[in-house]
Amino acid sequence: MARHLYSCPLRWSDMDAFGHVNNVVFLRYLEEARIDFMFRLAPGDGSPSFAGGSVVARHEIDYVRPLVHRHAPVTVESWVTKIGAASLTIAYEIKDPEQVYVRASTIVVPYDLAAERPRRITAEEKLFLQEYLDQEPAAV
Amino acid sequence: MARHLYSCPLRWSDMDAFGHVNNVVFLRYLEEARIDFMFRLAPGDGSPSFAGGSVVARHEIDYVRPLVHRHAPVTVESWVTKIGAASLTIAYEIKDPEQVYVRASTIVVPYDLAAERPRRITAEEKLFLQEYLDQEPAAV
Amino acid sequence: MARHLYSCPLRWSDMDAFGHVNNVVFLRYLEEARIDFMFRLAPGDGSPSFAGGSVVARHEIDYVRPLVHRHAPVTVESWVTKIGAASLTIAYEIKDPEQVYVRASTIVVPYDLAAERPRRITAEEKLFLQEYLDQEPAAV
Amino acid sequence: MARHLYSCPLRWSDMDAFGHVNNVVFLRYLEEARIDFMFRLAPGDGSPSFAGGSVVARHEIDYVRPLVHRHAPVTVESWVTKIGAASLTIAYEIKDPEQVYVRASTIVVPYDLAAERPRRITAEEKLFLQEYLDQEPAAV
Repeated sequence: MARHLYSCPLRWSDMDAFGHVNNVVFLRYLEEARIDFMFRLAPGDGSPSFAGGSVVARHEIDYVRPLVHRHAPVTVESWVTKIGAASLTIAYEIKDPEQVYVRASTIVVPYDLAAERPRRITAEEKLFLQEYLDQEPAAV
Repeated sequence: MARHLYSCPLRWSDMDAFGHVNNVVFLRYLEEARIDFMFRLAPGDGSPSFAGGSVVARHEIDYVRPLVHRHAPVTVESWVTKIGAASLTIAYEIKDPEQVYVRASTIVVPYDLAAERPRRITAEEKLFLQEYLDQEPAAV
Repeated sequence: MARHLYSCPLRWSDMDAFGHVNNVVFLRYLEEARIDFMFRLAPGDGSPSFAGGSVVARHEIDYVRPLVHRHAPVTVESWVTKIGAASLTIAYEIKDPEQVYVRASTIVVPYDLAAERPRRITAEEKLFLQEYLDQEPAAV
Repeated sequence: MARHLYSCPLRWSDMDAFGHVNNVVFLRYLEEARIDFMFRLAPGDGSPSFAGGSVVARHEIDYVRPLVHRHAPVTVESWVTKIGAASLTIAYEIKDPEQVYVRASTIVVPYDLAAERPRRITAEEKLFLQEYLDQEPAAV
């Protein structure tokens, strides 16, 4: 039951006029973690791959505490909470060793760009995702 | 039972490498609508105002169909689905006359920047918000 | 000797932690004005068009005074200062009726995406650009 | 004659609809490098510091070759080309070991936020900057 850990560097411009990382920017951090997980790690040789097309169908995101720009990255911990025939749900925590800033989950739909429609998850992809599957309900 | 309508201009850079408005950018559109509603329209004279401090506690967002950059703005329609003692919930649809692109809701917490803690919604603010209150459950 | 006027809406998130429109964001305003000028207005029927591919080769930008978010748009005034065989130079001012915030210029190179190389400006494009040609040296 | 080297991670969203890192985003990379150099490294104890306030007065930026998102960071190499009484000029190259993507320079003005006006460079800051001073004219 693996967890995907992504070390996510902040940018100074991630802060808004209130001097905190803006709520919208945390979804960029989730995107970076998801791309590392689904585009770089997930299989794709000889089969459709997530990098070849995937669509976000839904986000839920809870903001637990504010974050200010600093030079050290935050960690985005991700796992899979559900594997459907044609969608998967990813849960995440954005955190430091001591504390959690954000809890979130995303429904992702693999997409066939050539056919312009959603496609089913392949058996190879399912095997990969199952390593990260955790019964624990998504935090949000 | 009023609805707040915000005409939201797109930027070409809102598109990502897949050639659609990126899922994260839609939360910017919601932010712009919310700021127009809560910072520009909502009362604040002689009382704490939302513009003086407010924090997003949670977003839920459903992506209904993709959007490509064009010169005409999209409409963000917003209303209030819940008024608590120290929080409110806003529901939105991002749409054209013919179709909906996104349905979402946000929990906002008024914040006292000086005292550095959440504050209660004032009676004046409640009166303002009630004009936009709709029993209809948030779309997401 | 026409000038292209683009009414550019601000977003609250254009401000950085110092509470001003961030210096990088002004280049987004220039991009929006340029896209309106080159993608929407410029000819393209029956010929390669700028919308079909163009590359920024160089920017110069001078920051004259700071700008804070407000609901009224700023104006980006653009004109053409040079038309080469395979490049053009656009000059801009970002301003209100009373004052100038930014002066800038950009060298743009039309690009043939299929052939993956720069291309020459067509006679039809040159005629269009000459309407906006002004000998006045770029402000920067 | 030191050079400041900043390892700058890319984000997938740095690409625009043409599938390359957008020209505006490179100025974010320069900002990150500058903040690392001026906010993190530069002195400030017991004196006004750059982090306490500084304003970009001018950018020049030349785009040498396009860059596509990848997981490895790019290097931003920075040095100081001019130290004035109340401004400094930074030159940069954004590059890999094999090739250069961008050459640029920025004029920065230290700013006294309390007094709301530009301030002079301190003797301590000048000593720090001189380590990075290079007579070589800025690349642009």
